[in-house]
Amino acid sequence: MKALEQGSKLAQQIQFILEIDQLKGVLRQTLLIDGSRQENSAEHSWHLAIMAILLAEYVPHPVDMLRVIKMMLVHDLVEVDAGDTFCYDVQGNQNKATREQQAADRLFGLLPANQGLELRSLWEEFEAHTTPDAQFANALDRLQPLLHNWQTQGGTWRLHGITRDRVQQRMLPVQEGTPVLWKMVQEILEHSVAAGYLANE
Amino acid sequence: MKALEQGSKLAQQIQFILEIDQLKGVLRQTLLIDGSRQENSAEHSWHLAIMAILLAEYVPHPVDMLRVIKMMLVHDLVEVDAGDTFCYDVQGNQNKATREQQAADRLFGLLPANQGLELRSLWEEFEAHTTPDAQFANALDRLQPLLHNWQTQGGTWRLHGITRDRVQQRMLPVQEGTPVLWKMVQEILEHSVAAGYLANE
Repeated sequence: MKALEQGSKLAQQIQFILEIDQLKGVLRQTLLIDGSRQENSAEHSWHLAIMAILLAEYVPHPVDMLRVIKMMLVHDLVEVDAGDTFCYDVQGNQNKATREQQAADRLFGLLPANQGLELRSLWEEFEAHTTPDAQFANALDRLQPLLHNWQTQGGTWRLHGITRDRVQQRMLPVQEGTPVLWKMVQEILEHSVAAGYLANE
Repeated sequence: MKALEQGSKLAQQIQFILEIDQLKGVLRQTLLIDGSRQENSAEHSWHLAIMAILLAEYVPHPVDMLRVIKMMLVHDLVEVDAGDTFCYDVQGNQNKATREQQAADRLFGLLPANQGLELRSLWEEFEAHTTPDAQFANALDRLQPLLHNWQTQGGTWRLHGITRDRVQQRMLPVQEGTPVLWKMVQEILEHSVAAGYLANE
């Protein structure tokens, strides 16, 4: 096809767009709030992007909303190759970084250089947790499954016997990124333990 | 819970965030590119937002990327109440506007007033197709299922016996929003007819 000539910029962009469709098939441990099935990483990314729009006022520094949203949209893209690694899976997390770097090489490499670089650097910034934008993005990425586990009477926590101290540890980026929401997290954990959704130890 | 006191701003925002999770269960006619299942409107919205980032250079006027991405993220939210209406369903499209206005009243009404207004007005702008940002957003919303139907050897077109003239008509917003991509659409339609994915009439 002429418009999609091999190697043209547009062909590269369309190829990437087709390729990332696979993220819709990458299942996370988290259940949907209605409990009907596991969430996939594409719809999870959509949810986080909307949360970023709505919750930015709770960040103690100015947020570059466009950058944060882009970060949310691409933060899980490497899972197309590397899969989703359950956060409480000790073994799977040992080689996660290597698998994800290889995935980033291939996936972002499909794009025209400037676009590939932009998206990859946003993903790396997200992974590094060091900038205020990335800290907010990571806070949301931890907060959303907490809301889902709470709403599904313990969802993943119950399925895998996860205890409160591990969830508390996992939620630390919320304290870092949005201290105001940390209070809410503590109350949700309290409620979840009291309601029997989450084992105290 | 204190942080989520009835009627507090944060409680309204969290309520909305929980409510829109239902968009992940709203199925579109479009199949995923691997053909495994129908796409849902949440993951579709994620895909469009990334397409907006990648394809803005083909729009003949400056694009406000943050506004376009927000538009993509919220453009299908009303389907939480109103469901997805298949674009080639004549009857379903007769009362679509009314159903969606009622859904918008309820859903955006859950949010603090300023946020509800902002998101609702982006949705209305998308629906009106009149601003350049909305025209680009609508072009992407038409282009993405075309790519999926092409990649799935005719997917929805074959299932519902949709002919080329109807698809051509449906694609007109691409011509309006991104004339450069219109050429690609025509080539994809040519190829789809030649390959037997799409009936000529």
